[in-house]
Amino acid sequence: MIYLDNAATSYPKPPQVIEAVVRCLSEQGANPGRGAYPMALAASRVIFEAREAIAELIGASDAADVVFTLNATDGLNLALKGLLSPGDHAIASAVEHNAVLRPLSALAGRGVAVETARCAHDGTIDLDHLEALIRPNTRLIVTLHASNVLGTLLPAAEIAALAKRHGVLYVLDAAQTAGSISLDVGELGADVVVFSGHKGMLGPMGTGAAWISPRVEVRELRQGGTGGESERTEQPSTRPDRYESGTLNTPGIAGLGAAARFILEQGVAAISEREATLAQRLLAGLVSVPGVTVYGPPPGSPRVPVISINVAGMDAHELAFLLDKEHGIAARSGLHCAPSAHAVAGTLETGALRFGVGFFNTEDEIDCALSAVAAIAEDAGRRIG
Amino acid sequence: MIYLDNAATSYPKPPQVIEAVVRCLSEQGANPGRGAYPMALAASRVIFEAREAIAELIGASDAADVVFTLNATDGLNLALKGLLSPGDHAIASAVEHNAVLRPLSALAGRGVAVETARCAHDGTIDLDHLEALIRPNTRLIVTLHASNVLGTLLPAAEIAALAKRHGVLYVLDAAQTAGSISLDVGELGADVVVFSGHKGMLGPMGTGAAWISPRVEVRELRQGGTGGESERTEQPSTRPDRYESGTLNTPGIAGLGAAARFILEQGVAAISEREATLAQRLLAGLVSVPGVTVYGPPPGSPRVPVISINVAGMDAHELAFLLDKEHGIAARSGLHCAPSAHAVAGTLETGALRFGVGFFNTEDEIDCALSAVAAIAEDAGRRIG
Repeated sequence: MIYLDNAATSYPKPPQVIEAVVRCLSEQGANPGRGAYPMALAASRVIFEAREAIAELIGASDAADVVFTLNATDGLNLALKGLLSPGDHAIASAVEHNAVLRPLSALAGRGVAVETARCAHDGTIDLDHLEALIRPNTRLIVTLHASNVLGTLLPAAEIAALAKRHGVLYVLDAAQTAGSISLDVGELGADVVVFSGHKGMLGPMGTGAAWISPRVEVRELRQGGTGGESERTEQPSTRPDRYESGTLNTPGIAGLGAAARFILEQGVAAISEREATLAQRLLAGLVSVPGVTVYGPPPGSPRVPVISINVAGMDAHELAFLLDKEHGIAARSGLHCAPSAHAVAGTLETGALRFGVGFFNTEDEIDCALSAVAAIAEDAGRRIG
Repeated sequence: MIYLDNAATSYPKPPQVIEAVVRCLSEQGANPGRGAYPMALAASRVIFEAREAIAELIGASDAADVVFTLNATDGLNLALKGLLSPGDHAIASAVEHNAVLRPLSALAGRGVAVETARCAHDGTIDLDHLEALIRPNTRLIVTLHASNVLGTLLPAAEIAALAKRHGVLYVLDAAQTAGSISLDVGELGADVVVFSGHKGMLGPMGTGAAWISPRVEVRELRQGGTGGESERTEQPSTRPDRYESGTLNTPGIAGLGAAARFILEQGVAAISEREATLAQRLLAGLVSVPGVTVYGPPPGSPRVPVISINVAGMDAHELAFLLDKEHGIAARSGLHCAPSAHAVAGTLETGALRFGVGFFNTEDEIDCALSAVAAIAEDAGRRIG
């Protein structure tokens, strides 16, 4: 199998990740923060070290501002519901994932007004339109850092500066960038940055995190036992406890911590460059195959290694089927939980096939994928005459 | 180490659990429900089989009513916030965990009235008082199935019947019973049953589930991508998708599925009996140690294998410290995230030391714990004269 679905989840994981999960399950299996005997302290250390590694990776000066979540969706629900109240106005980009669109749609039913900033066909955001949408009651802007369909990078620092200028908060969905694009929350100026643990972060599914600026007050999504201040029936206000009710996914976080340390060792810049080289190789090949339509930014532009295509005369699902059955290539067809991005690209009706390139892919695998697409497109071309 | 903190999380896990987690991470590492190539289908099968095994274990006729959560706290937040609206009245028992008390406290701030049904010192609930609290606007009763401090079993079936008689919903927190006490959601009559995956269920931390009766409409806690109906920016209403936004904790759920199959093979009755034998042995020994106060139901009564004690002249934390340092026994001191249960038992100021017996404990370990407590209590007795 050639795995090219890294935008859904990265595979394989570094061996250290699986080792850390197994070590946690076998030797550090107590509930962290809820006992003082050695194995409970070992479990607490697992959580502590993972939080520190992630803080280092994203440039957070205080690891207590990094809170663990079930996944990026959980973190985005926390950020949006924890910041928006009835009467508020929120602005999203036109290429958001359902992890943002659906919570916003729920909030719209509770008196939050939501508007969308235009994006071009390739996913580029119209910053003038975004700025023009700001009203006196605008509470926040939320955008993804990179489109999970088009691969387009959004100018997060510019949006953060624009938001700051207008006294508006900025929530950044870094699901497609954390771990593979340099991200310094101290410099960036966003107020909440949310990401998955299992995509570019290379950790296990079931993990995610949110960095919450110490300057902003975000209501918690869940209340419950935190292992601290147990005598109070109100949620504690201390970080990270406030946002981490109930038993944490300790083995998953052990794996995520190992993944963060792996990324720190490799260096985000090196990972970024490696993935960009592979993605640009794939992109340059795809645009030259007759009958193939490639969406998103043109070759040579900065992007994340996500490339969506369609082949003339063929349904995206059929393309995925043939890539799998005849070439052993794992890629994903459909709408990728992001109908808005498909609307922008003009593929809402057809969907698209998405290649998600990862750090562990090789040049050979990219070339195999290119040959496979070329062969399938040639066949399809013959079929439609 | 003698591990007697199974009420916080069970340890060790059956070997099958760790094997299933590793297999998932190594061989089934795609995102389930989000691709059609073989590894994505294998990941979907992991989720499907785990859901089926849990449904079988709890007597759910439709596995789609079983939804995966981050932990029991996540499930209880889902149930309470998904059912209660401003103007509603809710009744909890006097021995609830902070996983219930803190969400209720947050809801109280949003116009939900909350009252507490009395419990006796040993945690037994006063059903007459519970019934007397019901008002025309009472929406639900929430109780735990067994106290995580006192070990007391609450009469869930009787409470469910009482609730039904009054047209009131019943939410059951089965964190301390699922997997080790027979639970048939079909017979029970509760409307939502929530549990952890990592306590009696023997799965990894970071897992939990809620069974939601097909008769009740519960609003979801999170919205986001579900892999299905991607074209809609509103949350789908189909189960289980409605409640499972974002990427699931696939490796954790793989482990939980293996744990559920392990429990089905052993039989819940056999597990229950084994744990009861060990717990009654510990309890019978503890009540006969001079200077030891034992909380909860007396020896011989049905209970879960959770036993809290204090030793005269000694702080509970000191007792935990000595058990660990001098006897290698892992047990937990404090309030166990349940201040109300400690208030009922009269230990809110002092806390208590809790033994949580598990399926993998042995008679020898119980006897070691008894000797250790006896030795420590004797020393303490000498100290205080």
